[in-house]
This record gives sequence, C-alpha cells and structure tokens, in this order.
Amino acid sequence: MILALAGGVGAARMLSGLVQVVEPSRITAVVNTGDDLVLHGVKVCPDLDTVTYTLAGMINPETGWGLRDETWSAMAELREYSRGRLGWFNLGDRDLGTHLYRTSRLAEGATLSAVAAEIALRWGVHCRLLPMTHDRVETKVVITVDGADAEVDFQEYFVHRRHAVAVSAVRFAGVDSASAAPGVLESISSAERIVICPSNPLVSIAPILATGGIAEAVAAVRSKVTAVSPIVGGRALKGPADRMLSELGHTSDAAGVARLWAPYAATMVIDEVDAGLATAVEDTGMRAIVAPTVMSDAGKAAALAEVVLGQEKESRS
Amino acid sequence: MILALAGGVGAARMLSGLVQVVEPSRITAVVNTGDDLVLHGVKVCPDLDTVTYTLAGMINPETGWGLRDETWSAMAELREYSRGRLGWFNLGDRDLGTHLYRTSRLAEGATLSAVAAEIALRWGVHCRLLPMTHDRVETKVVITVDGADAEVDFQEYFVHRRHAVAVSAVRFAGVDSASAAPGVLESISSAERIVICPSNPLVSIAPILATGGIAEAVAAVRSKVTAVSPIVGGRALKGPADRMLSELGHTSDAAGVARLWAPYAATMVIDEVDAGLATAVEDTGMRAIVAPTVMSDAGKAAALAEVVLGQEKESRS
Repeated sequence: MILALAGGVGAARMLSGLVQVVEPSRITAVVNTGDDLVLHGVKVCPDLDTVTYTLAGMINPETGWGLRDETWSAMAELREYSRGRLGWFNLGDRDLGTHLYRTSRLAEGATLSAVAAEIALRWGVHCRLLPMTHDRVETKVVITVDGADAEVDFQEYFVHRRHAVAVSAVRFAGVDSASAAPGVLESISSAERIVICPSNPLVSIAPILATGGIAEAVAAVRSKVTAVSPIVGGRALKGPADRMLSELGHTSDAAGVARLWAPYAATMVIDEVDAGLATAVEDTGMRAIVAPTVMSDAGKAAALAEVVLGQEKESRS
Repeated sequence: MILALAGGVGAARMLSGLVQVVEPSRITAVVNTGDDLVLHGVKVCPDLDTVTYTLAGMINPETGWGLRDETWSAMAELREYSRGRLGWFNLGDRDLGTHLYRTSRLAEGATLSAVAAEIALRWGVHCRLLPMTHDRVETKVVITVDGADAEVDFQEYFVHRRHAVAVSAVRFAGVDSASAAPGVLESISSAERIVICPSNPLVSIAPILATGGIAEAVAAVRSKVTAVSPIVGGRALKGPADRMLSELGHTSDAAGVARLWAPYAATMVIDEVDAGLATAVEDTGMRAIVAPTVMSDAGKAAALAEVVLGQEKESRS
C-alpha cells in the first residue's frame, strides 16, 4: 500500500498521478482537516473534497475547487440577503449537496472517515481517503488587522482575505488532544512507500504531522518516505506557501522546505529549475531527486508519480 | 393593527388578500413554527417562508412552496449520495439560500423574529411576521408504522409519508416551557381585529394557541376575532386537515372547526357551499358569515379579506 500525506490542490494532482501508476485501491491518502469549517450550518472539508473531486475527474476546471457543471443559486441568494457580508466562501449548489450529505451523516453519528468513504464511493474513487483525525483541529493564523495582530480561522485568511496579508504565526487549535483517525498510524507503519505531497508545508502538511503521533510514526519509517517540494523556482504553484515560508522565518525555496521535512522524509523530489538547490537539500540529510514536478496535465502527474515511487529516478548523488 | 394567526398556504393566501385592503405595515402575522425543522444542518421554517414568499409574489407556482425560478442541484446530489434515503424534504437551491442565511444569523445570535424580519425586508414584504415563539416547539404526530403506533415529527408525516396515513394523536413537544415571542401577546391585546386564517386547526393554529398564553390572550379579546374555516364542503382545500379532524374525533366540516375555535373567535366565515352549516356554527356561540372563501386568485383573496374585516358582510343571522 502507498500512503500519501495530502493537502488540497497539489496533493490532488499528485494523487491523480499516483492512481495512474498504482492500483487506486492500493493507495491511502491521509488528508488535512485543519481547514475544515462549518459554514451556515453545513460541514465543509475543502481538502477532502478537492482530492475526491479531482480523482473523480469532477473538479471544476474554472475554479480549481468544487464540482464542474455547477449552478450558484444558493450563494447568490445568501449574498443578496446579507448584502454581501456572507457567502465569501463560495459553494456551488451541487457542491452544497456534498456538504448537506456530510452534515446529515455526521449528525446521524457516522464518522468523518465513513462519510469520506461514502462520498468517494459515489464518485467512483477507489483510493482510501482518511481524514487525519476525527477530532476538531483548527488551523488558525495570526494576521494584522487594522494595525493590530488578530488570530483568525484559516479560511478567513485564505479565502476571505485572499491570503493577501502577512501571516506572523500559525497554530493548530485542539491538536494537543486530537487523535489520529482510526487506521492512520497503522497505515503509516505498514505502507510500502509514503509520499509527502507538494502541499503547503505550514498549513497543509504541518497540521497532519502535528496530530496524534503522526509525526513520530512518519519519522519512524523515514527511509520509505519521499517528499515532493511544493516550491518551484522559489514560488508556490498555487496558494501562499512561498510567502508564508518567508513570513514565518523559513527560506522560501525547496531547500527551506527540505529543512522542515528532513526529519520525516529520506528523499525529496525537487524541480529541474531548482537543480542548483540539490546540494542544499542534501545538506539537510535528504537525498535529492531532480525531476519535472509541475503537474500541468495527467501525463506529467503520472511521470512525477513514477519518479516518486522510484520506478524512474534521476538522482544527483 | 390587524393581527393574523397563520399557518402555511391557506394563511399566506389570506394575508395576500389582507394586504390588498389594509396597509401591509398595519398587518402583523403570528406564524406557526411547530413544523420547523433542522435539515442537513440548516434551519427550515416552512410556514414563515410560505407566508413570506407568497406575500413577495415569489412563491413557486408549480410546487406551492419554495421560490419561483428555482434550480434543484443540491438536493439532486444529496439524493444521489444517499441513494434516495435523504432529500425527501425537497429544497430548491435559491430556497436553500434562505435557510443558509437563517442558519447563519441564528448562529450569530439573532432571534428568529429578527431573521424573519430581515428575510421579509429583502423581499419587500412590509407585514410584520412574528414566529409564535423563539423556543423549540415541535409538532409530533402518532401514526401507525408497520402495525405499531409511532410518534414522528410532523414533516415525517406530512412530507415524507405525504400525509397518507392516519393520525391518532398530536402533541406539541416543548410547548409547556415555551414563551410567546416578544411582541406576540402585546399585539394580540392591542390589535383592532384578529383573523384566524384558514389553516389546519390541529397542526397549524393549535400549536400557536398552545404556546405561552396565546390562547388566553386571544380568548380575552374574542369579540374582535374572526376565523375563516379551512374546511369547505367537508374538504380541506390543501393538506390533510379534513382527515385529521375525523381521525382525531372531530367533525370534518366547518361546524367541527367552529367547535374548536368558538372559545377564541366571536365570528366565523364559512363558505357558501356550507351555508347549511351556519346554524351548527352559531350553536357553538359564534356568529356565522357565509361568503365565498376559496381564494383561487388575488381578487377573491381580497374580497374574502373585506368580508373578514367586516367592510362587506353577509350574515345569516
């Protein structure tokens, strides 16, 4: 079994590559839930849904999130009622069906893992998708609001403020008392290979690692762990990972990511444009593999998956 | 000020007549909330919404509930996920916007009255719409399920089972500790005229009367109360009121309704087809007015409103 630690878009693309080179039923993804939120009464799990919809081929190509062939009636009304105050986290009508289903099932007593599996099944996704925890872990970021520091929910920063403000701290509220979801630690221990997907190290991968012994479990099997840098040429392909790294005192390049992930992964794949950073990556104690990492189409995602799983590799060392 | 005790469709039509003959801002409706429910995490207030949408001219003419020009994406997905188990209470996407807004505002600490006023304002409805209570009062009915008595939520009976089963009891759970919403009792006392709308006596008007002193307040001003029979020629124009009256030991005609409402209303308007029941109605101690009561268009609703407010009347006595 191949295990992946997964955030949202970057992880979804990595997984869409992995399923082309490994039987999907042999893949388990442990997915970040630190960005989850309850919006207008309904439970939304952005990373789980992005992974599921992408693997289903149903992701909305226009937005990069949500379902394709979408209508937008409910949010339009919500914005009308609230004169634009509510509805900044946009949810399509079809997508709302997912959240209404999840909310109903959780209210019925189903676990988030069970619901994630049901949603995957409905879309014909055969990977096993495990939320990192069934407990409440909430990513909070400190930003400057009207000249003063304010701690806000991740989505307030990420979506409402379009991550256009500097972050001075990140915290995972509730993580101290959270357990890894059933099956997570066992899957880490028994996996043949583990992939740290090219997701935001600070707000997608870090909350997974911070939860219920996951960091220790991954570190214990470090030799079978390969990470893929989400930073290419000093830039995040999507989202604010590059700026967040700088703002929080890290180096905003593949070597900066390597320093964060070296305790957990023996190998890191960095992009060809970052070949010059391979030594710096290896200085962290990881092996560096240089390969094309930009998954701009399905073929490139599959090729990267093959690199990650070691069926093809180009090592500098 | 004219006050109306209101359920759903019949009350909405009565109010749409009243607003044609009285300045809407002079009308207060006290609306049943016993049918309210939390569905998939969102708070739905069927009677408040039917009244609001009807007065706004936005009621869906095809369904008789919900908004016109509707899409149905969210529920279609929910039914797909649940293989039809969920989604029996159909909610259009635009209508969902109302429920998401209400749910958000309640979570923010707004009262149901405040939210009802905000929703009315957005649709340009100038009547004052008061929920009967801010407390939880839930209409429960006892029906026979698989040969045994079972108490179910009203909407389980009304929508899910399409009220196609016999009811052996009705109860308003929580009513003993519920208070009338702020303004309700004062409005009853100060109203110039009170109208009991042609709504189901047992599950629309009864829960209002049963809540927090409303019955006593209405009885205390009985002389200014006029009721409109929801039963015409022994039949409810909509819904199961006729069958429920029989099933619960009442007479399923205007006289049966009169016996229920005589303590609260000095006058009852009955349909021309029920002219023969006028004596039976008056035997309950009410004055009977015989008039066309079927509000099949706006003009007929306005004409009935004029009868009810006594600007035109044809009394048998």
